[in-house]
Amino acid sequence: MSYDRNNIFARILRGEIPCRKVYEDEFALAFEDIAPAAPVHVLVIPKGEYVSFHDFTGSAPAELQQGFFRAVHKVAAQLGVEQNGYRLLTNHGADAAQAVHHFHMHILAGRPLGSLLPR
Amino acid sequence: MSYDRNNIFARILRGEIPCRKVYEDEFALAFEDIAPAAPVHVLVIPKGEYVSFHDFTGSAPAELQQGFFRAVHKVAAQLGVEQNGYRLLTNHGADAAQAVHHFHMHILAGRPLGSLLPR
Repeated sequence: MSYDRNNIFARILRGEIPCRKVYEDEFALAFEDIAPAAPVHVLVIPKGEYVSFHDFTGSAPAELQQGFFRAVHKVAAQLGVEQNGYRLLTNHGADAAQAVHHFHMHILAGRPLGSLLPR
Repeated sequence: MSYDRNNIFARILRGEIPCRKVYEDEFALAFEDIAPAAPVHVLVIPKGEYVSFHDFTGSAPAELQQGFFRAVHKVAAQLGVEQNGYRLLTNHGADAAQAVHHFHMHILAGRPLGSLLPR
């Protein structure tokens, strides 16, 4: 799948659509999910045109990959969720129901999160 | 939480406990989950003493971090799940029900995986 520059996260990165920003640095932007699945539900996206984790880890420069995953760590620390715990999750493709085709990681926290997958 | 060198994944890395190996390189080992939650359920762990994602991305050397995430990509490619899709997930701490305190990422695939969290 090629990258669609008009996906909603690309538009958020360009400032065309507002978001509830949680964190930003040169590598990544983090903001609250508009339809939260847990008391804490934040998305972290890289600053670059990558469709999914698979694309990102297969082709992004090493510095961006490192900066992105460090940013995810920093966001979790800033949210204060490392004490009680959090789940980090990303969906690639149709079976995983990837909804927006700009790579994003979900940070989910704030309550016991249950099993790995819905029954 | 300090790292327990007798956790089950440390013992698998030392070869003291067998595993169904899927992939291995200098940075990571991947093997089948013994209690699969989906038709494809593989765990990828770094070669190093890291309790969780939080610990790993906060303190592992850049080369190991890069090598690890590239290994996750390679495992997904090797499994042939990038066409239909996969979910990548890691649990940190109690709310996320982290079961083994050696950082591991779950690759889940092989069927539609449903919503982000159990209802």
